[in-house]
Amino acid sequence: MRNVSLVLAYEGTNYHGWQCQPGVVTVQETLQGAVQKILDHEIKLYAGARTDGGVHAMGQVVNFRTEKTIGPDNLVKGLNSVLPQDIRVLSAADVDDTFHARYSARSKIYVYCILNRPSNSPFLTRYALHWPHKLDLGAMKASTGALLGRHDFSAFKKKDEHYRNPVREVLRARLARRRNMIYFVIEANGFLRYMVRTIVGTLMLAGQGKITPDEFASILESRERERAGPTIPPQGLFLKEIKY
Amino acid sequence: MRNVSLVLAYEGTNYHGWQCQPGVVTVQETLQGAVQKILDHEIKLYAGARTDGGVHAMGQVVNFRTEKTIGPDNLVKGLNSVLPQDIRVLSAADVDDTFHARYSARSKIYVYCILNRPSNSPFLTRYALHWPHKLDLGAMKASTGALLGRHDFSAFKKKDEHYRNPVREVLRARLARRRNMIYFVIEANGFLRYMVRTIVGTLMLAGQGKITPDEFASILESRERERAGPTIPPQGLFLKEIKY
Repeated sequence: MRNVSLVLAYEGTNYHGWQCQPGVVTVQETLQGAVQKILDHEIKLYAGARTDGGVHAMGQVVNFRTEKTIGPDNLVKGLNSVLPQDIRVLSAADVDDTFHARYSARSKIYVYCILNRPSNSPFLTRYALHWPHKLDLGAMKASTGALLGRHDFSAFKKKDEHYRNPVREVLRARLARRRNMIYFVIEANGFLRYMVRTIVGTLMLAGQGKITPDEFASILESRERERAGPTIPPQGLFLKEIKY
Repeated sequence: MRNVSLVLAYEGTNYHGWQCQPGVVTVQETLQGAVQKILDHEIKLYAGARTDGGVHAMGQVVNFRTEKTIGPDNLVKGLNSVLPQDIRVLSAADVDDTFHARYSARSKIYVYCILNRPSNSPFLTRYALHWPHKLDLGAMKASTGALLGRHDFSAFKKKDEHYRNPVREVLRARLARRRNMIYFVIEANGFLRYMVRTIVGTLMLAGQGKITPDEFASILESRERERAGPTIPPQGLFLKEIKY
């Protein structure tokens, strides 16, 4: 039995996130339908990350099993010919039988984009949060240091979402501004639901002078979701890469 | 009477181009409605360039007259609050009474984007032509030289579109590749309809080895539309800037 992995990019705007749910269109359901159409048998699809509604992916990874002999290049071409334009398969490969898109992942990298200028851009409404007010990038950068390492990230999770183990390890957390765009890049061994969007929402409080970098650190330590900032909208968030 | 100019950006996907036409939605009609709503009187709107359906603008310039005293900043805010997200006013200014967005323009800069890699990007389907096959950038670059200076550009115009004076002066024509994206930048004192898209369509013939740079030059000299390449799709084309 072959174990096949795909790398894919998608624009999340028109999808209710990755995971199949009754009554709404999801990326998983759409991709699964395409793979089954090409392979002509049922498959089970595993994904490296279960992105939320409106979140984009530049490097989502999935795997599934098949006995069909179609080559990776023809699989990519076939899938892209039946998939909608907002989901594209970038590559396919045969992988080791032990490979599992979710459980084999060592880390994931997300990027959140903030367009920080007076007027929004008509080209970025789906791809960035528009913030017309001043942000103190220095204060935001000074806050990110607290994120590094192993922490209980309960302060930055979806309300009412419970985890047996809310500890994750952040390997990288970096802010950069290029012209009017602020990029927040975070790499971790895993993420709680809404974690990136709530971290950025809280960093923006620091950027507005509403909290200090020390207060940011104490919010994280408190593990209290109520103390953190808002969960900002999904359209600025991209799953950039999954490392194995 | 004040003469007010606006700089605007728009995503052309959902519009039948700039110019008002019966029965379809255009950028001119949409912007005119917004200005009239804010100023509460009828206006005549002049634009620096009449972009075609699906073509985008990063720096369209318009002007109109009013006696209302609303300041430029409030005008920008007011317009953006009533305009759809895919049209954004970037700035407003009071200009000299002689200023006319179209007739005062000295030159316009357009950019055409080609995504040159095997798979399309779900983020660029509206913003670039996807070309999965090899393109010889050297041959394309060698062809662009012929465009510089004053020429009758009839070979690169819309079929059946007639001009009393089809001579335009190209000030700049440059091709560059950054990663998988090829950018064609052209600045001229004016453009015939479909001129940029037909030039790029013909440059792509050179990139595929179907014509030589010398043949590209002789197509331009021939002034025969039939000898040039196809008019490629509008979604890769951006009106970048208008110089006054």
